[in-house]
Amino acid sequence: MKIFVLGGDGFCGWPCSVNLADQGHDVVILDNLSRRKIDIDLEVESLTPISSIGDRLKAWEEVSNNPMRFIQLDIAKEYQRLLDLIIDEKPDSIVHFAEQRAAPYSMKSSSTKRYTVDNNVNGTHNLLAAIVESGLDVHIVHLGTMGVYGYGSHRGATIPEGYLKVEVPQPDGTRFEEEILHPASPGSVYHMTKTLDQLLFLYYNKNDNIRITDLHQGIVWGTNTKATLKDPRLTNRFDYDGDYGTVLNRFLMQAAINYPLTVHGTGGQTRAFIHIEDSVKCVQLALENPPQSGERVKIFNQMTESHQVGELAKKVAELTNATINYLPNPRNEAVENDLIVDNKCFLELGLNPTTLDNGLLTEVVDVAKRWTDRCDQKRIPCISAWTSSQAKAIKKT
Amino acid sequence: MKIFVLGGDGFCGWPCSVNLADQGHDVVILDNLSRRKIDIDLEVESLTPISSIGDRLKAWEEVSNNPMRFIQLDIAKEYQRLLDLIIDEKPDSIVHFAEQRAAPYSMKSSSTKRYTVDNNVNGTHNLLAAIVESGLDVHIVHLGTMGVYGYGSHRGATIPEGYLKVEVPQPDGTRFEEEILHPASPGSVYHMTKTLDQLLFLYYNKNDNIRITDLHQGIVWGTNTKATLKDPRLTNRFDYDGDYGTVLNRFLMQAAINYPLTVHGTGGQTRAFIHIEDSVKCVQLALENPPQSGERVKIFNQMTESHQVGELAKKVAELTNATINYLPNPRNEAVENDLIVDNKCFLELGLNPTTLDNGLLTEVVDVAKRWTDRCDQKRIPCISAWTSSQAKAIKKT
Repeated sequence: MKIFVLGGDGFCGWPCSVNLADQGHDVVILDNLSRRKIDIDLEVESLTPISSIGDRLKAWEEVSNNPMRFIQLDIAKEYQRLLDLIIDEKPDSIVHFAEQRAAPYSMKSSSTKRYTVDNNVNGTHNLLAAIVESGLDVHIVHLGTMGVYGYGSHRGATIPEGYLKVEVPQPDGTRFEEEILHPASPGSVYHMTKTLDQLLFLYYNKNDNIRITDLHQGIVWGTNTKATLKDPRLTNRFDYDGDYGTVLNRFLMQAAINYPLTVHGTGGQTRAFIHIEDSVKCVQLALENPPQSGERVKIFNQMTESHQVGELAKKVAELTNATINYLPNPRNEAVENDLIVDNKCFLELGLNPTTLDNGLLTEVVDVAKRWTDRCDQKRIPCISAWTSSQAKAIKKT
Repeated sequence: MKIFVLGGDGFCGWPCSVNLADQGHDVVILDNLSRRKIDIDLEVESLTPISSIGDRLKAWEEVSNNPMRFIQLDIAKEYQRLLDLIIDEKPDSIVHFAEQRAAPYSMKSSSTKRYTVDNNVNGTHNLLAAIVESGLDVHIVHLGTMGVYGYGSHRGATIPEGYLKVEVPQPDGTRFEEEILHPASPGSVYHMTKTLDQLLFLYYNKNDNIRITDLHQGIVWGTNTKATLKDPRLTNRFDYDGDYGTVLNRFLMQAAINYPLTVHGTGGQTRAFIHIEDSVKCVQLALENPPQSGERVKIFNQMTESHQVGELAKKVAELTNATINYLPNPRNEAVENDLIVDNKCFLELGLNPTTLDNGLLTEVVDVAKRWTDRCDQKRIPCISAWTSSQAKAIKKT
């Protein structure tokens, strides 16, 4: 099938594009290269050395017989070009990764808050409006986040795949049943934009019959996939800085350079995780199993295991002899929470998860230890605070 | 108290500003005059002749001893000026009317859809981010809409004031209780932006303790208030065109010029209504009864009566001997719906509603009949269609 990958040069977008091309699909990457440009602003670099998008595509063309195309485009700003491309190319599906995706970055300042909202909401809405205007029946696969559900106490209840069955009690003692979009409880401006996306999807699906799959993804760990390992120039990025580094990858890198693992708060926060290889596979499964016309937005929980952050740190410490450093938490979140997640949709479609127990050591040795000399230690601390009082607490330490 | 009124030159914003000044408050109007400019694009004018904002303020200064100030500003685009004004002026409260507010306009084209989303979301988010950045404890009163709840069948259930008590059944047969934001069910891009606003408020209230009152308003009818009647130059706008005219005001104007009342669909759609005088009073009550620090977003249903659109047409027809014309419905909505709304919060605060039975005839005589010669009949039809198939159905007639 012909697939546009919006944001196809990013951490999830790139390995996803390579995998889809590897599966024989006709892939067109649309990206404004914003992720690389934000690295310049933040004065950081991927731990792994990544090639330019041009070199990536050249490498892929050399190792495969199914080249990809690249179009530099800002979907949040260039509506007419996006529309023209959809009309001219008639993609069967569009995978939408083109959003600012770091919670700490979204909390750095009013400027990054505003950029995140403006970019993410207008990007998603432009895509929806363009598909309606094109008159074509294009399936959207969107990368959302488990964070839309929030990490408050779920009182031992399982988080369903997007929709929650509730009963509404009436004054006369009766109750009626309803299935609703799971109530949103975002923990950062970034997460908030993903809850806004959900309402954009709800509306355009209902009003214009747009077929949409929304993937509520956990925290991704790992770096490469089978396909990106085919050539060093295909290597995926690995972020370890306080803004874009995800918790588990940060632990791995810290362990590799003998930097104490940074646990913010008690470590009692439970989060959902998924390996990059599984993430890529899930997107492929979602594309191959689209909703029918008239079907409501399909929501998958894209995660494979849940862990407390502190337990993860201990697991990495045991594996590597690292120490653990407990720091004040810059986030406005529950000290501790349960997290039981329903992910049977992907399991039923054949996902065979890479477990932490099997994959962690490979990452430490092949990625973190290998590129130790590229690490800039002063970029490790988390600086963004969620509220002004937390900013003060961090400054004191 | 010192109050900023964002969008204080518009249909609700202007009489609200005048009332607040009349009550002795220190009012500063911030407006980009977009409502007047959209009239230019649409080639329509208010049925009532309205003065420029400068003449309005001059008139108010002459009839009162409490002048208002005006600052031309686009809150969706001029973040820094908005922030500077908040820091310099330290308002106690900010009333936020500064959104594109017509559902049909929001559905005209991809351009008006995109403008509505961009303007409304960024405007609201800029306001929230600016208040956080200012560090001040400013109470926001926002004009929302009853449309966030949707007009599907509510199965005879009463729509609560924003929050819904639900029970979540668990696999073991137990159920836990939760109070959630009423599920959103927007019927147009405009309504969708108001559901996005709700999530922005939910988040900023929770994360930054911003005090917010969200007014879920019904359809406004009527034109002037006691305060705007003090001088002809204070007259409020009256829209009758297919985009900005609200249903009841359109019926009144149609009756005045012997144009058959335009009912779209069967007329079985039930909607909530409120007179402009009551709307203005509700905003004042909301300002005078702010939420406490730490309190969740306060949500009021700002409406006084519910009616089926077809019944309203019959009421106006009886009063004026008008005929009724049933036309295809351009909206993607239920043919017929119930609507029972809880509005006790405002009644308990002392709202004494103007009823349709008492106010309708005054509007017909004092406004619609008086300005008959200003009506441009070719602007009456509704042209925006909600979906492409509805656009085709309208073209056929």
